[in-house]
Amino acid sequence: MVQMVETETSCCTIISEDVKDAVVLEGSPELGLIGNILGWLLVEELKMKQIGYIDSKKFPPLAVLYKGIAIHPFRIYSTDGIVLFLSDFIIPPTVSYDMSNAIVEWMERNNSKELITFNSMVVMEKSDSVAGAANSEDALKRLGDLELPILPFGNVNGLSGALLTRTATKDIPASCLFAEVLNQYPDPRAAASLVNVLNKMLDIDVNAEPLLKEAKDIEERLKELAKRVQNEPESPIYS
Amino acid sequence: MVQMVETETSCCTIISEDVKDAVVLEGSPELGLIGNILGWLLVEELKMKQIGYIDSKKFPPLAVLYKGIAIHPFRIYSTDGIVLFLSDFIIPPTVSYDMSNAIVEWMERNNSKELITFNSMVVMEKSDSVAGAANSEDALKRLGDLELPILPFGNVNGLSGALLTRTATKDIPASCLFAEVLNQYPDPRAAASLVNVLNKMLDIDVNAEPLLKEAKDIEERLKELAKRVQNEPESPIYS
Amino acid sequence: MVQMVETETSCCTIISEDVKDAVVLEGSPELGLIGNILGWLLVEELKMKQIGYIDSKKFPPLAVLYKGIAIHPFRIYSTDGIVLFLSDFIIPPTVSYDMSNAIVEWMERNNSKELITFNSMVVMEKSDSVAGAANSEDALKRLGDLELPILPFGNVNGLSGALLTRTATKDIPASCLFAEVLNQYPDPRAAASLVNVLNKMLDIDVNAEPLLKEAKDIEERLKELAKRVQNEPESPIYS
Amino acid sequence: MVQMVETETSCCTIISEDVKDAVVLEGSPELGLIGNILGWLLVEELKMKQIGYIDSKKFPPLAVLYKGIAIHPFRIYSTDGIVLFLSDFIIPPTVSYDMSNAIVEWMERNNSKELITFNSMVVMEKSDSVAGAANSEDALKRLGDLELPILPFGNVNGLSGALLTRTATKDIPASCLFAEVLNQYPDPRAAASLVNVLNKMLDIDVNAEPLLKEAKDIEERLKELAKRVQNEPESPIYS
Amino acid sequence: MVQMVETETSCCTIISEDVKDAVVLEGSPELGLIGNILGWLLVEELKMKQIGYIDSKKFPPLAVLYKGIAIHPFRIYSTDGIVLFLSDFIIPPTVSYDMSNAIVEWMERNNSKELITFNSMVVMEKSDSVAGAANSEDALKRLGDLELPILPFGNVNGLSGALLTRTATKDIPASCLFAEVLNQYPDPRAAASLVNVLNKMLDIDVNAEPLLKEAKDIEERLKELAKRVQNEPESPIYS
Repeated sequence: MVQMVETETSCCTIISEDVKDAVVLEGSPELGLIGNILGWLLVEELKMKQIGYIDSKKFPPLAVLYKGIAIHPFRIYSTDGIVLFLSDFIIPPTVSYDMSNAIVEWMERNNSKELITFNSMVVMEKSDSVAGAANSEDALKRLGDLELPILPFGNVNGLSGALLTRTATKDIPASCLFAEVLNQYPDPRAAASLVNVLNKMLDIDVNAEPLLKEAKDIEERLKELAKRVQNEPESPIYS
Repeated sequence: MVQMVETETSCCTIISEDVKDAVVLEGSPELGLIGNILGWLLVEELKMKQIGYIDSKKFPPLAVLYKGIAIHPFRIYSTDGIVLFLSDFIIPPTVSYDMSNAIVEWMERNNSKELITFNSMVVMEKSDSVAGAANSEDALKRLGDLELPILPFGNVNGLSGALLTRTATKDIPASCLFAEVLNQYPDPRAAASLVNVLNKMLDIDVNAEPLLKEAKDIEERLKELAKRVQNEPESPIYS
Repeated sequence: MVQMVETETSCCTIISEDVKDAVVLEGSPELGLIGNILGWLLVEELKMKQIGYIDSKKFPPLAVLYKGIAIHPFRIYSTDGIVLFLSDFIIPPTVSYDMSNAIVEWMERNNSKELITFNSMVVMEKSDSVAGAANSEDALKRLGDLELPILPFGNVNGLSGALLTRTATKDIPASCLFAEVLNQYPDPRAAASLVNVLNKMLDIDVNAEPLLKEAKDIEERLKELAKRVQNEPESPIYS
Repeated sequence: MVQMVETETSCCTIISEDVKDAVVLEGSPELGLIGNILGWLLVEELKMKQIGYIDSKKFPPLAVLYKGIAIHPFRIYSTDGIVLFLSDFIIPPTVSYDMSNAIVEWMERNNSKELITFNSMVVMEKSDSVAGAANSEDALKRLGDLELPILPFGNVNGLSGALLTRTATKDIPASCLFAEVLNQYPDPRAAASLVNVLNKMLDIDVNAEPLLKEAKDIEERLKELAKRVQNEPESPIYS
Repeated sequence: MVQMVETETSCCTIISEDVKDAVVLEGSPELGLIGNILGWLLVEELKMKQIGYIDSKKFPPLAVLYKGIAIHPFRIYSTDGIVLFLSDFIIPPTVSYDMSNAIVEWMERNNSKELITFNSMVVMEKSDSVAGAANSEDALKRLGDLELPILPFGNVNGLSGALLTRTATKDIPASCLFAEVLNQYPDPRAAASLVNVLNKMLDIDVNAEPLLKEAKDIEERLKELAKRVQNEPESPIYS
């Protein structure tokens, strides 16, 4: 039988199986929801298995439906040598500090190899480029080996920012991949742009097509909406 | 004499009689106030008896009048094999976590058979359809047997969301019924749409007519109001 | 010498003389400030004596002037068999729970006979009617004996709501009198409408005339203001 | 060597020399900043010496410059038989309760003779009158002896309100002087109106001229500004 | 091996090497971000080495990228006899009190010679002048020796304000340099104006040119933006 282990800090608890020597991915929804969209793609495409969840009094009361079944809003998944921390809500800033401590404690106990997080950079115009950053000279060198452009300056907000410095303190290599976004709205096309890089980093073969299809659907709907808004007169509520 | 038992968490206390082996319904007012409206209908139609209430420092100071008598704003009712947790105010998110723990603890001690919660799905246009979700494969199968369409993806907010995952952790089957709503306003017609499904699930025979009548009354009043707003000139406050 | 007794909860303290077997009135300012306005009338007309006050860290820093003397903003008054809890500020919701516990504890220790609170019901148009509600069947019957119409459904907010259910838990009879108000502004005319009922309930003979005079003064001033607003051109700040 | 004594409550600490048998003045900035403006005048004109300060985690991070030197934002000054508590920021309401306790504790230990606080009354039109209130019949009588009109009814907000009732509880006489203000802006002219009364009460001879000059300067600047606003076209940011 | 020492208060921890007998500079971003901009210049020009950081639950979750590497948002740097506390985010006011205690404790233990902080004074029109203030008569005298004009009156907000009074309490000399700003936006030109004074105070030779170049770049971009805003018609979102 699988043993669930609790990793607890003052404001949150990780209830999860232990998985040794894995690469850990973190997908929480910052601007563009990049990490969350990419995380769901990996769950589907790699048929990842849920191995645990994070629980906290400070989370919003929320369940997420997946094929009709209510699941925890912050789940942990695993497949061959890869572990994914996947959140479906924006982590409250007051929780991020303790949560990053709990995740890094989990990684230390499980001798995790490295951390990869996902974030976004806001641009005025998209050039479809992707950039990376890391938490040490060594970790940065690896990104160079992948011929990934480096994001030299800027802020990394949210859980991924907190994890980057926290892992550095514990000498765990970590990197962050940045997709270009125009605004805060969900952007599956931006998330898709990271798939190739991730495929190389993890030596996997995930297909970004579902995200590109989703992006086209959203764009179609927005164009449709824009047309209707221009054409329809404002209608009375009761006629 | 009936014995009242206290189930206490750090922020709320259930003061209630114990009722063994019951199906537990939860009716707190999310969008459209579906759970609350449906809960009041059940209290009236099934002549449910109040067996307790939930108390918390974090509730708003509030009493609710029922036939001229002030009652607690969060009450627990019971009738043959059915227990209803009924709230007349929106549960503060900071209370939901502890409250869902207290309710599930009550259910475990009372060997409750299952949980049924009520919620809503916001639609652009109503099709009068109802959908369900559950907290496990087994619980989901039962909904399929009722020929109830499944809501595959989405968020379940509030106490009902928190209860769905909390019961799953304790292996208590739970399901959630979703009515279609257009906005956040009280929608008795939407609540009525759930009555047939609930009749089948609980093998009861509740009549939705009172809710349909209430819906018609609200709609009449809104039409009347719309007419008056169009016809009346803005009147001076003092003449 | 009079002995002051402290009744303390985690967020407030009652410092007061004990008065046995009294009817307790509660006057905190909800919509229309009914309870507060009525309370001040009783203090003046019944020449009630201050016997204590409530103190709390969570109160706003505030003193109230009465004939040039600074007094506590939440005071306790007494006269023949009547005790009045009178607040001059809106009780913060986070204090109401503990405060209602402290007041009911005071009532239990003093064997208080019953509680009467005051509140308001918002109407579109005034009909000068008054309504009542109670915290038990027995308490409700008494209101019927007074030929007082019952307010069957609705919410009772604030300290008076919290006290109605809290006294019920301790088997202390309580009732609430509701005056009609149009909005949240102080309404001495509405407060005056409750005086006759209270006279019958307490077998006293208070004259509502001072409130009606105050109401006329307010109304005169508002009419005057309305005229000036219509006639005066907007004046420059510096000429 | 002077000994500094700490008077500590749960949220603030007074670090100060002890001064026995003094009259204590309190100058915190309520509407019109009356107490603060008057306090600074006294410091200058009476050449008061700083004897301590109040420190609190809940104060805003702030230093005040005085002749180029950074000083604590809440200081305590003394001169012949007079002690002044002078704040340069609006006391957070959550601090006022504990701070008034600490100040009154300091006064009790130092056998302070009385407390005089300063506040304002908002009027539609100024009549240059000043009013007083007190915390007991005896304290009020003294104001009558000064031929000072009494402010019969109203609210006294802020630290001065909290101190008036807190000193009453400890049988320390206290009074409050009210200047007329039109709005919340700093009003040196209103502060100046209190100087004559204070001169009589403390048997001192402070000249209000510096405040009247400051008032004229402010008024000149506002007139100038009003003219410029009327004459200048809105200018583009970059030309 | 270098030893890291923890200096902890109830809400933040300094994790840093000890550096004895240094002059301590503090650069947190108040209006115009003067301290932060100037701090980064010193790090670059003096090739300062990071010796530690400050950590706190109450910080926003944030990492800062520097040449592609994620670093803590509040870092401590050192070079010959100079230590710099450099923050890349606005310190939450609730943290400033404890943090100033922790920094001054660090300074006491390390026998720091003096503190220099940076801030800004808002002006209607720039005159390119710089001013200073200090935390004692002696510290002020030194600024006079530098022929630096003194800022006689005003408020010093933020961590620099809290540090000025806190160091005074511990008899550590401290001064604050003020640059002129027009508003709250980052102002490298204003930060540059402080460089000459700092060069004299620290006997260093830092070149302000990089800040002046940055200022020109910002100004160019704003002019460009202003032109485009004037010329371009508002474009439809979807065409």
